[in-house]
Amino acid sequence: MKYLTGIARKDTMEISELLTEGREGKRVKVNGAVHAIRDMGNIAFIILRKREGLLQGVYEEGISGFSLKDVKEADTIEIEGMLEKNEKAPNGIEIRMETVRILSEPEDEMMPLAISKWKLGTSLDAKLNYRPIALRNIRERAKFKLQEGITRAFRDFLYEQGFTEIHTPKIGAKSAEGGANLFRLEYFHRPAILQQSPQLYKQMMVGVYDRVFETAPVFRAEKHNTRRHLNEYTSLDFEMGYIDGFEDIMAMETGLLQYMMKLFEEQYAKELDILKITLPDVSRIPAIRFDEAKQKVAEKYDRRIKNPFDLEPEEEELIGQYAKEEWDSDFVFVTHYPSKKRPFYALDDPEDPRYTLSFDLLYKGMEITTGGQRIHSYPALAAKIKARGMEEEGLTHYLDAFKHGMPPHGGIGIGLERLTMKLVGEDNVRETTLFPRDLSRLEP
Amino acid sequence: MKYLTGIARKDTMEISELLTEGREGKRVKVNGAVHAIRDMGNIAFIILRKREGLLQGVYEEGISGFSLKDVKEADTIEIEGMLEKNEKAPNGIEIRMETVRILSEPEDEMMPLAISKWKLGTSLDAKLNYRPIALRNIRERAKFKLQEGITRAFRDFLYEQGFTEIHTPKIGAKSAEGGANLFRLEYFHRPAILQQSPQLYKQMMVGVYDRVFETAPVFRAEKHNTRRHLNEYTSLDFEMGYIDGFEDIMAMETGLLQYMMKLFEEQYAKELDILKITLPDVSRIPAIRFDEAKQKVAEKYDRRIKNPFDLEPEEEELIGQYAKEEWDSDFVFVTHYPSKKRPFYALDDPEDPRYTLSFDLLYKGMEITTGGQRIHSYPALAAKIKARGMEEEGLTHYLDAFKHGMPPHGGIGIGLERLTMKLVGEDNVRETTLFPRDLSRLEP
Repeated sequence: MKYLTGIARKDTMEISELLTEGREGKRVKVNGAVHAIRDMGNIAFIILRKREGLLQGVYEEGISGFSLKDVKEADTIEIEGMLEKNEKAPNGIEIRMETVRILSEPEDEMMPLAISKWKLGTSLDAKLNYRPIALRNIRERAKFKLQEGITRAFRDFLYEQGFTEIHTPKIGAKSAEGGANLFRLEYFHRPAILQQSPQLYKQMMVGVYDRVFETAPVFRAEKHNTRRHLNEYTSLDFEMGYIDGFEDIMAMETGLLQYMMKLFEEQYAKELDILKITLPDVSRIPAIRFDEAKQKVAEKYDRRIKNPFDLEPEEEELIGQYAKEEWDSDFVFVTHYPSKKRPFYALDDPEDPRYTLSFDLLYKGMEITTGGQRIHSYPALAAKIKARGMEEEGLTHYLDAFKHGMPPHGGIGIGLERLTMKLVGEDNVRETTLFPRDLSRLEP
Repeated sequence: MKYLTGIARKDTMEISELLTEGREGKRVKVNGAVHAIRDMGNIAFIILRKREGLLQGVYEEGISGFSLKDVKEADTIEIEGMLEKNEKAPNGIEIRMETVRILSEPEDEMMPLAISKWKLGTSLDAKLNYRPIALRNIRERAKFKLQEGITRAFRDFLYEQGFTEIHTPKIGAKSAEGGANLFRLEYFHRPAILQQSPQLYKQMMVGVYDRVFETAPVFRAEKHNTRRHLNEYTSLDFEMGYIDGFEDIMAMETGLLQYMMKLFEEQYAKELDILKITLPDVSRIPAIRFDEAKQKVAEKYDRRIKNPFDLEPEEEELIGQYAKEEWDSDFVFVTHYPSKKRPFYALDDPEDPRYTLSFDLLYKGMEITTGGQRIHSYPALAAKIKARGMEEEGLTHYLDAFKHGMPPHGGIGIGLERLTMKLVGEDNVRETTLFPRDLSRLEP
């Protein structure tokens, strides 16, 4: 029997430790993957890839206590040597290598992609086919580090605002938003589906905790093969009770985005720099009515309104352009979507029930959030379900929560990969999805 | 057009705000759900359920500016009145109500469960059938607030330790641990499965970020109907590179548990108190070899070892009992599980390849974690796959990562609901699963 007492302190250092005061001129030990070797003759640079960035090791023939031939790209190694300043090296430091210990070796030295290039100049398909390798590229992996920041900001901000995190089931008997676009499976000889949203669950949980959130995968069997659709994605969902109106929800999302940008500045400066990202100004976000937005865009860009109750993708883009040109904002809330285009639980505007008290948030002309106030009165909900020709069966438990009292409430769902895509300036959502699932892709 | 500028400041207060210095004797406004009404004749107590706990409102006939009949249980309301001290009331405060505003009303006042009782004295089945209602009980919801603390501690600790959060796909073409126990679905006319673990993905990502974690649902089509099995659960997974041995992983998990208990003390004291939980001592966790543990238990509890390469559930329980009696620990690592019982990626012990460099962590005699060091050398991995009679097909992308170099690494998976179950002292994992999925339950 032995005791474990906590994290084992190691004598190997991370880059941030090397950069602390007083380390220069001292002997240090580090490990990492050999990202690249630049052989200059008597001297060679062994570039290590570590989780905090790149680190330059200097090999000097006859001085370093090993042969350069002992090390190859894609090895993982541990080195010891003197830490010195070098303004030309990553982070301004380098290690004059004395010893090397090989921790692991690749079977195949020929990488399928040139990951050590600054920009991985290859097709999206090649990147996705070799995803675990492609992501070793410093710029590629920085995108997903920023994606972490989005989820982290979402959770930390909501904890601060009194929300409770929940985990709702992804396998279910019935879905939130009707029967279309559902993946179906057999669940111990019973038909089941994969949830396309945690909507009904988070609403039920508002009756318990007032404010709840979830960050989890959702599944949509949509046959779209576009730059912005995925069949599985990560949805950042919150739902809050005791609201005075749907403006409270937009205000909360604005607060969230402000928190997020601050977190990026404080914790993800390295990644912002690697990807040359200028953060958007979210100190104020304009909100414009759906019908008004359509009108403005039609006037300004000389477009004919084909259907007043629908928004075409080009219109969405133009609203984004309009918000940028007129209000200098990358973000714009479009409010009061037509009732027909919204699910049964959306609350109709009492002043004009053809529209709902709901909204989308567009980021550079693309929808990244759908949100709104929900119906909280049981009779109103039952009437809407009936009017839509839907069955109450399968919604029993959901309706139970409303029968026994629910506060006025509403919430949002954010598509994590889409928000990342717009933030890092990509034009295909697969670029910002770790392992995308689309019509043709089930692997890796 | 209007601008949103951030969170809207409200004049309604939460309990923690009411409890700040200097509020007593002042007029305040609060909202909440009517949890219970206790009518004493000329005076009545209206107990509000708010996200931070219960709050007592005092109704005085002829003084309060409304009639008690205007308010009923399960209404959500907003009240105004004077805040006063009352040691007998929850949190030592109460509000002498002057006005009330009804925000929403239940359709059915008769609750299916007596949620305002301190202990919800009902069967597990009834609780699960009325889950969204049952969770309005203060003790029931406290369990899931603590569950939040587990996930939160997991993430915050790992961020601190340089881990990166990842999101891996749940729909796939092939699974980590073979073909058994998989839910199958049709994915655009192709066969697909639901992942039973993010194992292969997190390993591939070690090659990118060195240290990664994920908190997400996993799916297991196991036909067990026991107190500890679920068909969908939340798995807390981490995987770390550059380890010196599998002890590093146990050390990291010990550090995590220490961080978790500290977070509970600091942020979840209310819930610990509601559920009368004494936190386990995790300052040191014993680790004992699988074969040695079997031997010790056989000796101490007079049991015959039937199969030296398997652990029966009763043996697991007895190892837990042994750890408590001999080392006064609720937790115990059982190390060196037999190779036969571990998946192909487990690293065999070079000193005796019948065993692996892996472990389970038992908490009060139940496995809550499986972990270990993995094979990182491509030839060793390919040989193991061959020896097991498995196909390399379907593992191509996984093997690619190893062909092109992977550091020594390992990790763990924690079952969130099981850990919660043991922490709060329940004996059925469904008690600590928000909406459980088992052989018979697909709803709510």
